[in-house]
Amino acid sequence: MARFFVAASNIFGGIAYLNGEDLDHIKALRIRDGEMFTVCDGEGTDYSCVLSKVDRDTAEVQILDKAPSKGEPSVNCTVYMAYAKGDKIEHVVQKAVELGASSIVLFPSKRCVSRPEGAALIKKTARYSKIAEEAAKQCGRGKIPTVITAPSYKAAIEQAVRADVPLFCYEDEKELSIKTCLEENPRMKTVSIVTGPEGGFEKEEAAMAVDMGMKCVTMGTRILRCETAPLCALTAVMYATGNL
Amino acid sequence: MARFFVAASNIFGGIAYLNGEDLDHIKALRIRDGEMFTVCDGEGTDYSCVLSKVDRDTAEVQILDKAPSKGEPSVNCTVYMAYAKGDKIEHVVQKAVELGASSIVLFPSKRCVSRPEGAALIKKTARYSKIAEEAAKQCGRGKIPTVITAPSYKAAIEQAVRADVPLFCYEDEKELSIKTCLEENPRMKTVSIVTGPEGGFEKEEAAMAVDMGMKCVTMGTRILRCETAPLCALTAVMYATGNL
Repeated sequence: MARFFVAASNIFGGIAYLNGEDLDHIKALRIRDGEMFTVCDGEGTDYSCVLSKVDRDTAEVQILDKAPSKGEPSVNCTVYMAYAKGDKIEHVVQKAVELGASSIVLFPSKRCVSRPEGAALIKKTARYSKIAEEAAKQCGRGKIPTVITAPSYKAAIEQAVRADVPLFCYEDEKELSIKTCLEENPRMKTVSIVTGPEGGFEKEEAAMAVDMGMKCVTMGTRILRCETAPLCALTAVMYATGNL
Repeated sequence: MARFFVAASNIFGGIAYLNGEDLDHIKALRIRDGEMFTVCDGEGTDYSCVLSKVDRDTAEVQILDKAPSKGEPSVNCTVYMAYAKGDKIEHVVQKAVELGASSIVLFPSKRCVSRPEGAALIKKTARYSKIAEEAAKQCGRGKIPTVITAPSYKAAIEQAVRADVPLFCYEDEKELSIKTCLEENPRMKTVSIVTGPEGGFEKEEAAMAVDMGMKCVTMGTRILRCETAPLCALTAVMYATGNL
């Protein structure tokens, strides 16, 4: 079923008002009279709708029913990913949204080869946000996960440690598995996942993260690529919290 | 540490013999005298080695120690993936090897847009096998997962049902979660994961799979893309069996 995100302020009096790209999309879909589709306010509510009126600038959509979005997981999990080369960030953003991430935070770390700044960073972040929105529509999320950037490694960790379970995925950790760590915290409401760049984290970065309160975890004996690790950890969190 | 796969027949008398691409790779790496690296027989044993002699056609490598490969998971999990468009199969093969799949089986199903056959299929499968080998080297596997093709949907399911836990990931399944199914089978040794093409499975395909003995499972309320679903399911299996 087609799915649109509409700002909550455009939904009132039993009608949702769509314009811009959504209007173009509604027209392109050639939605028939009486055909149901979903409008989501991006704040966790889904509205079952039929098309009521389309003109040049606006589509008016009649709301028949509303319910909490089914696509939102019960856990709030933020993925902190170090900058990576090529299209790896695009890939992780798209998949992390599907798998249920609440937001994605990009940050620089010592071994990052790519460190976008200034106008390039603003442009890239806008692109990642667009990918997140498209993925959220496609997979049926009730909220559009945000993609933001942290100005420094330290700033990213400062934010990540605030979660109930702050996971630092580290290749050199040999003892504590992500599974053990998650199962020790059955009532977690918020989780953060921090993963490194292509070359991994430096020892001092891991030590600093632990000092600041992160939990170093391993995801087994295989070395995961920088674009595989965040999605593996996110899937583990969704599994552990009953969202799979 | 550098890692090479060498046929077990090329390992004897405390020496491993490398040639072809591996020889080129050893030369390119400029391995120093006394520098340790790993040779794996692709059957689950890792050898700690130093370079002993290199000539035009062969590198002789002295074996100092051997141990079971740490990178092999305790569960044997095969990923059955319907043919998909673009580079999605390459992507899944690479990531599935990292995440611990034993093998990958590609198969046609009704809604597959791409259905390679004949010479094109042989060429593609060779390429996927190469990707599996590269991924196995990079992530430290002890075996190179095979990539094979099933001639028909039925043939794929006939093979998949032989596993202790044969999982059929189906969008329309609303009751049995993959987690529940995995936790009901704590002693599983073999698992199969079957996932569909871009448009999903047809109802009759799902019914046939269940008739043949597959267990229909859901992976939650979000609609996963055809390249996300197999990796999500594989991660769940690795988590459930203590391999994460």
